[in-house]
Amino acid sequence: MKSFTIGLSQFAASDNAGVNLDTAESQIRTAAAAGAEVICLQELVSTLYFCRREDPANFAFAETVPGSTTDRFASVAKELGVVLVLPLFEKRATGLYHNTAAIIDADGSYLGKYRKMHIPEDPGFHEKFYFTPGDLGYRIWDTAFGKIGVLICWDQWYPEAARLTAMQGANVIFYPTAIGWLPEEKPSLGAAQHTAWQTVQRGHAVANGCYVAAANRIGTEGETEFWGQSFIANPYGEIIAEASEGEKQILTARIDLEKLEEFRQIWPFFRDRRIDSYEQMEERWIDSK
Amino acid sequence: MKSFTIGLSQFAASDNAGVNLDTAESQIRTAAAAGAEVICLQELVSTLYFCRREDPANFAFAETVPGSTTDRFASVAKELGVVLVLPLFEKRATGLYHNTAAIIDADGSYLGKYRKMHIPEDPGFHEKFYFTPGDLGYRIWDTAFGKIGVLICWDQWYPEAARLTAMQGANVIFYPTAIGWLPEEKPSLGAAQHTAWQTVQRGHAVANGCYVAAANRIGTEGETEFWGQSFIANPYGEIIAEASEGEKQILTARIDLEKLEEFRQIWPFFRDRRIDSYEQMEERWIDSK
Repeated sequence: MKSFTIGLSQFAASDNAGVNLDTAESQIRTAAAAGAEVICLQELVSTLYFCRREDPANFAFAETVPGSTTDRFASVAKELGVVLVLPLFEKRATGLYHNTAAIIDADGSYLGKYRKMHIPEDPGFHEKFYFTPGDLGYRIWDTAFGKIGVLICWDQWYPEAARLTAMQGANVIFYPTAIGWLPEEKPSLGAAQHTAWQTVQRGHAVANGCYVAAANRIGTEGETEFWGQSFIANPYGEIIAEASEGEKQILTARIDLEKLEEFRQIWPFFRDRRIDSYEQMEERWIDSK
Repeated sequence: MKSFTIGLSQFAASDNAGVNLDTAESQIRTAAAAGAEVICLQELVSTLYFCRREDPANFAFAETVPGSTTDRFASVAKELGVVLVLPLFEKRATGLYHNTAAIIDADGSYLGKYRKMHIPEDPGFHEKFYFTPGDLGYRIWDTAFGKIGVLICWDQWYPEAARLTAMQGANVIFYPTAIGWLPEEKPSLGAAQHTAWQTVQRGHAVANGCYVAAANRIGTEGETEFWGQSFIANPYGEIIAEASEGEKQILTARIDLEKLEEFRQIWPFFRDRRIDSYEQMEERWIDSK
């Protein structure tokens, strides 16, 4: 397979899980009709971004993965012959929850899941209350169309996560996302925050010679304005597809494995990593001697 | 110190080391007059980019670090009261050479050196012939004006190098550089290559919540067209100063430690690094099981 087409979905969530999953399915059908072969939904696709507040009642939204929702979407994947990245709120055990993405192959088989490794905790983003940090590590899946990696939202700020995913052979790293502006920050920092978010992921594409694809939600929930602008970048960090700030949208782009290989042959970064000098990556900080 | 001003120099090298060092001194004086307190010169500042070809005769350009050139520039640093990042071709022993940068404090004292850790070897960039990979690791220097880190050119593609420098407290990472277009690549890939180069460094600024400052050379040497465009980016990855493609230039910008701290308080990435999960950063590649 020398190339494959990916699709990203962004939409505004409602407070009704059934409606959100129906919207997700409809988006998948639209993406498949547009030629997408690997389709990624936004983070926590079945719910509002409930982490705006800490409320134990929200644990009721969690479900087992795999479970009834992955079963439903496995049928859709099989019917359409597409790979799905399906981000869900996972209930692992009583009192133990993860922010997870299930990966479903084009024949409907469940390939496995990624559990978000880096968990934020900031005003309006109280994820440390809800989610236990992932314990499955960084993974890739050799799908019907190509090797894909999946990381989730806050992971996107960490070069380590992108590197450890790319080092397994991911040709594209998907980032299901829920990021937005807070009203007290948007006027002064809104543009800079969006630039930072986009730039750090484009940087991962360059450093690892792979594609990156971020699917963000839209819509205002409480005071949080999710900024959409889902995008796909190539190994040069060039944005090859970008969605709007506020429209429900499907974004597609071709993952060109020849272009990826050309990039890595001209700039063979993996050849020259100084792996003898990276030991302190496992430190929290390097204090002065 | 809540802020300090940095200066970058870019100029076209000649085949005369004396002329190049005179130009470097003149650039330093111009930068200091413009208010720069920490001034960074381009990679291998005393010579042409001789690595375009493999020729043992070029080892004659190497010098000891510290040595007569650092002595000369220590006097300039002391006279002007500025910190200098001075990239030189270091002769360490007979048959042993490094691509090095000396750091000189504002009182003229020699603070130490960084030896380029990641060494390229590509058409037109035959550095593995000339330079032994650095063995001093990643370092920072607590100068009269602020804590600075120094990495050199090919290092700029490696998130690990930026991370390990930032983790020591660098507020700004300098990247003395010699990067340019080859005639066979420029028409098809020139714009993309420049985007990649700038984007990956802007990404390091974001991921580490610090400033980055790249000083590249200009001018055509043989068929290589060095693309200048030295730049400084803030922790949001925004470019706050950028030079032209082909003009001799001084670039200055203020390093604002309050803005840096504000960034890290809003987005506390260092808090959440999953240091328990980064062990395989020391692997070359992660082969499928």
